[in-house]
Amino acid sequence: MVSKTKANFIISLQKKKVREDEKLYVIEGDKLVKEFLAAKVSVMTLVAKPEFLNSLPLFHKHGIGEIIPASYDELKKISSLKTPHNALAVIEMPEVKMDFADLKMGLKVALDFVQDPGNLGTIIRAAAWFGIKNIYCSEDCVDVYNPKVIQASMGAILNVKVFYTDLVKLFEKASENKIRIYGALIEGESIYSHKLGNQGIILLGNESKGISEELLPFITDKIMIPKITDAKSGIDSLNVSMAASVIFSEFTRSKGRLL
Amino acid sequence: MVSKTKANFIISLQKKKVREDEKLYVIEGDKLVKEFLAAKVSVMTLVAKPEFLNSLPLFHKHGIGEIIPASYDELKKISSLKTPHNALAVIEMPEVKMDFADLKMGLKVALDFVQDPGNLGTIIRAAAWFGIKNIYCSEDCVDVYNPKVIQASMGAILNVKVFYTDLVKLFEKASENKIRIYGALIEGESIYSHKLGNQGIILLGNESKGISEELLPFITDKIMIPKITDAKSGIDSLNVSMAASVIFSEFTRSKGRLL
Repeated sequence: MVSKTKANFIISLQKKKVREDEKLYVIEGDKLVKEFLAAKVSVMTLVAKPEFLNSLPLFHKHGIGEIIPASYDELKKISSLKTPHNALAVIEMPEVKMDFADLKMGLKVALDFVQDPGNLGTIIRAAAWFGIKNIYCSEDCVDVYNPKVIQASMGAILNVKVFYTDLVKLFEKASENKIRIYGALIEGESIYSHKLGNQGIILLGNESKGISEELLPFITDKIMIPKITDAKSGIDSLNVSMAASVIFSEFTRSKGRLL
Repeated sequence: MVSKTKANFIISLQKKKVREDEKLYVIEGDKLVKEFLAAKVSVMTLVAKPEFLNSLPLFHKHGIGEIIPASYDELKKISSLKTPHNALAVIEMPEVKMDFADLKMGLKVALDFVQDPGNLGTIIRAAAWFGIKNIYCSEDCVDVYNPKVIQASMGAILNVKVFYTDLVKLFEKASENKIRIYGALIEGESIYSHKLGNQGIILLGNESKGISEELLPFITDKIMIPKITDAKSGIDSLNVSMAASVIFSEFTRSKGRLL
């Protein structure tokens, strides 16, 4: 049974402020919870239907702070979704420490004021797919532990580190170290012809405003995805998460990056 | 003022059955409505705040069946969104007629049982961007006139024709005409190395089940997007709309398609 205090606590984690104070966040969904358990992530509380709990291998239950069997109605009460899944877990946030030395190796992504949780989740998923391990978010980006981001990222968050930081400072450091910054801009050069490198930072801007003025001077490579259409209306831009997927793909292809 | 009958009628268009019977659908949002008016689409009813109506150029108002000024509360009542926009319009569905002769020219997309409205909307947007004009949906795909599809497609629906059809029959026709069918499959060949053509049909499957068994024999080219990761968990597949964007981009790049 889920006590009232526990229920209220889990619900309170839907708020960013509470998540930050407690250093905890919530994941929902049978598959997602199983993936987190398999990845040996630190799980404080697991609330799930008895059937779900019975289906777990014993060694997955080790190390879980507390396991609470619950009914559909109890899960519905604490879920952020209209229709709850069979399992929900409270997870400890990993400590993420920025290391500027990291910047020099491989491809990274920087996101400037990306607001839509679905977009951030999808970008994390695309980054994980294309082997990009670090995402630097400006401090006004949507919170990575927002339930909708977690849902859209589909477990890919286990493979990608997301940092919140002052992008101006980050880019100053990058510039000092001659690290290329690829900015996705309407007036950029086609990603199909621009010479892409094997390392650097891919910078993507806000859904409607694009990249902030103050970040523009740091861009060393202006890139864009060519529009192949004669249409006069209706398509101003690709969605930022689609653009991310296409750009990550093109970096991968052009450099023959393979693990 | 929006009469009660009118309000109920507009709300009833949230149901697919009613949309099909009436051959009407609803769009919401200031920018979207303006784009539809600019594109000279047949608008039966425009419900909007007086400020919005006043901001319209006179020639955009010509040909609108009826214009109803409305308050925020009235718009909220008839909107499918939690927070209504300033304008909502009832649009006549265009007659779309399948022409098999079309199949022979350029790139097309076929979607097998794509269920998520956001995915269909995003795929339409990506298709429009990359100059793909025809999308063939299996009859069990989500309805293109579903409000969430329209919202996600962001007006791109004005530039892409969406047909609902029996994909087996379509592919039989395609096979007779030696049209290549590119199926996105886990066991496919990398899109970076597979020789892509300038025409044919790109087939994408359901979000969790992939491409139906019955369609597999028609596939002439099995393709996939390589995963560049050493991660053991969390990334089974790219979301179908991200995969679509990447595949459309790679067809574009490899053939130097330009208008």
